[in-house]
Amino acid sequence: MYRSHTCGELRSSNVGEKVTLSGWVQTVRDKGNIAWIDLRDRYGVTQMVAEQGVVSDEIFGQLRTLGREFVVQVEGEVIERYSKNDEMETGDIEINIASLKILNGSKVPPFTIEDETDGGEEIRMQYRYLDLRRNPVQEKLRLRNKVSLETRKYLDSQDFLEVETPVLIKSTPEGARDFVVPSRMNEGQFYALPQSPQTFKQLLMVSGFDRYYQIVKCFRDEDLRADRQPEFTQIDCEMAFVEQEDVLNTFEGMIKHLFKAVIDVELDDKFPRITYAEAMERYGSDKPDIRFDMEFVYLNDVAQGKGFSIFDSAEVVLGINVNDCAIYTRKQLDKLTDWVKRPQIGCKGLIYVKCNEDGSFKSSVDKFYSQEDLAEWAKLANAKPGDLILVLSGGLDKTRKQMNELRLHMGDELGLRNPKVFKPLWVMDFPLLEWDEETERYHAMHHPFTSPKPEDEALINTDPGKVRANAYDLAMNGVELGGGSIRIHDRDVQSRMFDLLGFSKEEAEAQFGFLMSAFEYGAPPHGGLAFGLDRLVATMGGSESIRDYIAFPKNNSGRDVMIDAPSPLNLQQFEELGIKLSK
Amino acid sequence: MYRSHTCGELRSSNVGEKVTLSGWVQTVRDKGNIAWIDLRDRYGVTQMVAEQGVVSDEIFGQLRTLGREFVVQVEGEVIERYSKNDEMETGDIEINIASLKILNGSKVPPFTIEDETDGGEEIRMQYRYLDLRRNPVQEKLRLRNKVSLETRKYLDSQDFLEVETPVLIKSTPEGARDFVVPSRMNEGQFYALPQSPQTFKQLLMVSGFDRYYQIVKCFRDEDLRADRQPEFTQIDCEMAFVEQEDVLNTFEGMIKHLFKAVIDVELDDKFPRITYAEAMERYGSDKPDIRFDMEFVYLNDVAQGKGFSIFDSAEVVLGINVNDCAIYTRKQLDKLTDWVKRPQIGCKGLIYVKCNEDGSFKSSVDKFYSQEDLAEWAKLANAKPGDLILVLSGGLDKTRKQMNELRLHMGDELGLRNPKVFKPLWVMDFPLLEWDEETERYHAMHHPFTSPKPEDEALINTDPGKVRANAYDLAMNGVELGGGSIRIHDRDVQSRMFDLLGFSKEEAEAQFGFLMSAFEYGAPPHGGLAFGLDRLVATMGGSESIRDYIAFPKNNSGRDVMIDAPSPLNLQQFEELGIKLSK
Repeated sequence: MYRSHTCGELRSSNVGEKVTLSGWVQTVRDKGNIAWIDLRDRYGVTQMVAEQGVVSDEIFGQLRTLGREFVVQVEGEVIERYSKNDEMETGDIEINIASLKILNGSKVPPFTIEDETDGGEEIRMQYRYLDLRRNPVQEKLRLRNKVSLETRKYLDSQDFLEVETPVLIKSTPEGARDFVVPSRMNEGQFYALPQSPQTFKQLLMVSGFDRYYQIVKCFRDEDLRADRQPEFTQIDCEMAFVEQEDVLNTFEGMIKHLFKAVIDVELDDKFPRITYAEAMERYGSDKPDIRFDMEFVYLNDVAQGKGFSIFDSAEVVLGINVNDCAIYTRKQLDKLTDWVKRPQIGCKGLIYVKCNEDGSFKSSVDKFYSQEDLAEWAKLANAKPGDLILVLSGGLDKTRKQMNELRLHMGDELGLRNPKVFKPLWVMDFPLLEWDEETERYHAMHHPFTSPKPEDEALINTDPGKVRANAYDLAMNGVELGGGSIRIHDRDVQSRMFDLLGFSKEEAEAQFGFLMSAFEYGAPPHGGLAFGLDRLVATMGGSESIRDYIAFPKNNSGRDVMIDAPSPLNLQQFEELGIKLSK
Repeated sequence: MYRSHTCGELRSSNVGEKVTLSGWVQTVRDKGNIAWIDLRDRYGVTQMVAEQGVVSDEIFGQLRTLGREFVVQVEGEVIERYSKNDEMETGDIEINIASLKILNGSKVPPFTIEDETDGGEEIRMQYRYLDLRRNPVQEKLRLRNKVSLETRKYLDSQDFLEVETPVLIKSTPEGARDFVVPSRMNEGQFYALPQSPQTFKQLLMVSGFDRYYQIVKCFRDEDLRADRQPEFTQIDCEMAFVEQEDVLNTFEGMIKHLFKAVIDVELDDKFPRITYAEAMERYGSDKPDIRFDMEFVYLNDVAQGKGFSIFDSAEVVLGINVNDCAIYTRKQLDKLTDWVKRPQIGCKGLIYVKCNEDGSFKSSVDKFYSQEDLAEWAKLANAKPGDLILVLSGGLDKTRKQMNELRLHMGDELGLRNPKVFKPLWVMDFPLLEWDEETERYHAMHHPFTSPKPEDEALINTDPGKVRANAYDLAMNGVELGGGSIRIHDRDVQSRMFDLLGFSKEEAEAQFGFLMSAFEYGAPPHGGLAFGLDRLVATMGGSESIRDYIAFPKNNSGRDVMIDAPSPLNLQQFEELGIKLSK
């Protein structure tokens, strides 16, 4: 038996007990004739004490050899501490060491195992098993565990069944890139790893499972960003005999349950809703952060026709009103201008209007606009004295995107994006299709299985780009937590959809024949959605980076630097699989 | 809104209510001027009735067009049934149809959607989405869902944290074959899919997670058998600061909880234990089915030296005593002989001794053995009048294996393997290594991370094949439900183990350097185990085939015949991945 108690368990009520504890040496404080060890495990830290002459010289000597992160087993008696520590849960007691056994030594770790570490990203990823010893990192994975568990409890209580769908499936090359797996038993053929269990969950609805969910790994071979990983986890759900409203209510309930049960946050009783079109108009984003205002102001009417050719030639002149920032210095405004001119944002410049406290205006385009002109701007932007109006101009879509970035940046700068405040928002009525300039054809905005809104069905033949879908996303704090749709359940509509997306009949049949065939045998109306677990947990944890919430993440090149994967294959593996490298 | 109630919900107390139900048409019974529909969903079946003249002619006509598996929505009033059906939960009521809407039609299914179907394995797999509509199949997946959920609840209550480990990892070519995934971003390099999260869970112990579990997909590219799938699911667990006894107690508790909570079966309070050596000696199997006796009887002493050269030259003469089967006819015995001579078993022949009711013996080797000789056999075998002794001979290992097969076969024949009876058995002290004749080197019997028993450590240098490991399996009803071990946590021991297994220092470092490095930074003693979820659920369901308990299984060629995977890649995919086919 390695321990009678954990390092987080003992209290004053245990005083006098003989106990055995095992854990890691957090610190050794050696005062010459008396020494203390802080012993740590997942459950907490307990202080141990040994006095020279009271313990044997052997133990005292051994104690002095202990380094940070040594694994030791200690036996001793629980005693009341002379000076109690209110900061520690075990701070009322300490263990009077009677014997000590080193279970394993430790080299000096390459960074400190403390809440705040001196290790950089790279070294912490290489020694991820040491990084994972740190409390804040363990907390994040504990949060993840709790979210998963509460998700399952909630969905189970709502009659959802978890069904595992296969990981070795079929490659469907449109959309994002698949990871593929050569089949040894079927030489020359490949499995693909699922980008989502989409078709399988729809088949489960055809099978009458009625309510399905799965917390499941999905895979996308895309170039990576901070919030993307090649493998990620979805809470994947589907329901039969439902309309959009049923789906929204069910998962609004789930999200409210999770926030309450896991982090004790009461979300709005009814999540606000916005259409995709309105979200783009007011925020330039399909996942607006509504923790703060700064809604877009369209200034064309007041800014055009005054001789400022940049505005005059722009499709849109777009402003946001930043409260109480008329005091920004020239230096601050120059910094903002540099920020929007970075290639990631790509603006040509930034126009500002300071609404001075004395009622006058000061702008970077004073040459073209009178005080009366600028007063019109301020009126439109609802700006009061002391506010700062920031203005961008150009093509509609591009300028909205740029202004969205600037708005979020100002939100960050001004501390308006409090990670402890959570503002969910349903974004509704996504377009069914989006036009791809490069390939000159329509792509499915969500995926090819999304059903058009019944009232827009006529447009499919006349103006496909205008067709709205019964598709919805749940945004929170500027993050897309999840999304879904009501699906097509009619073979002919599905077939028409594949036509629209440029599939030949043969391609559609080869890739999705099984699904269209299934629709011929009594497919019920159905719909669902999927949440990104990594993003949901990161948002709940108040972070924008999902990587911290994954035990063993990959870097931006898709590498696991700890185990050093991917790696070359050996000759026998190539031979058995019937493949070789091109070069 | 598609429904106010499910098809399993309504009772007499609902009589008089106007309701809306949606579901599949199970049957239509048309008696001319009155017709009934049985409407089915996941929750049950409800009867609908319509009388000509009472409903509109339009509805009555529409009703007559309904085929099996049509999806319909029905509105109507709940009425008391004239003749109640005690077999149905909703058998007290029926719905008086007021309106009816066909939500989707259905072609005639290729097999009947009933508990007993007329569809063969192949067609059912091709139309798995229809097979999954059948009650017994849905029941199996419901059982699986319940086992997963209760597993999580139990392990959570025991302070285990579920941590997701990566699916895209590193190929380690010894052991079973890996499935591999070409990396586009790291051209010429490959990920592997995990055969188990073994090294990651050990790293989590090094990280101080203390108690880890995960219900996780694992992958092995092996040739398939009835109880093997290329992807399978494990309940994977690991604990720090534990000895073997701690692990066994924890998971004995889990298994008892699952059987009680899911199928209301109380297992033995303390699972019996047997050593590997004893299991092989008494049953010829490391996963003995102890629901019945027929333990092995070693007959060498009484059967050799009597002039029967086959026995005289055999390493072992092995018998089992089959109760009450002396009445077996010549035909039955010939059939048994043919059974053991099949290539899958590979015996040269089968010797029998009938212990007749009158105290005499009749055997197939009467020429060589007197009645007194055979009486000695019967005494050793503890056979009483009426029993039948079956005897095989040959090399020790092979004969034990053959006799294990024969014993299980007799158990089946005589109905001694009741699927409703559950007999767990811990098999302990597995050998650390097994000698592989082909490669002429030792292989790890469990895996290279298993620790030797401390008392056998000295044998590592002198007689490695004799070293026993702190490794254990949980067998039940002849099935290995799971297994595990206490792991090595010392770098030097691990390194020595890789030497023994024929790894060069470079290979060991390249493949497992991260683990050995982790052992240098304070690795705690740890151990764990993994259960095969598919097998556990199949066993609880009383079946030996895991395939029925998987929603979308693959066939023996590793194909999903429904989606037709694996399949060829397109040219662009090959180019992006930098690979091509060998031929």
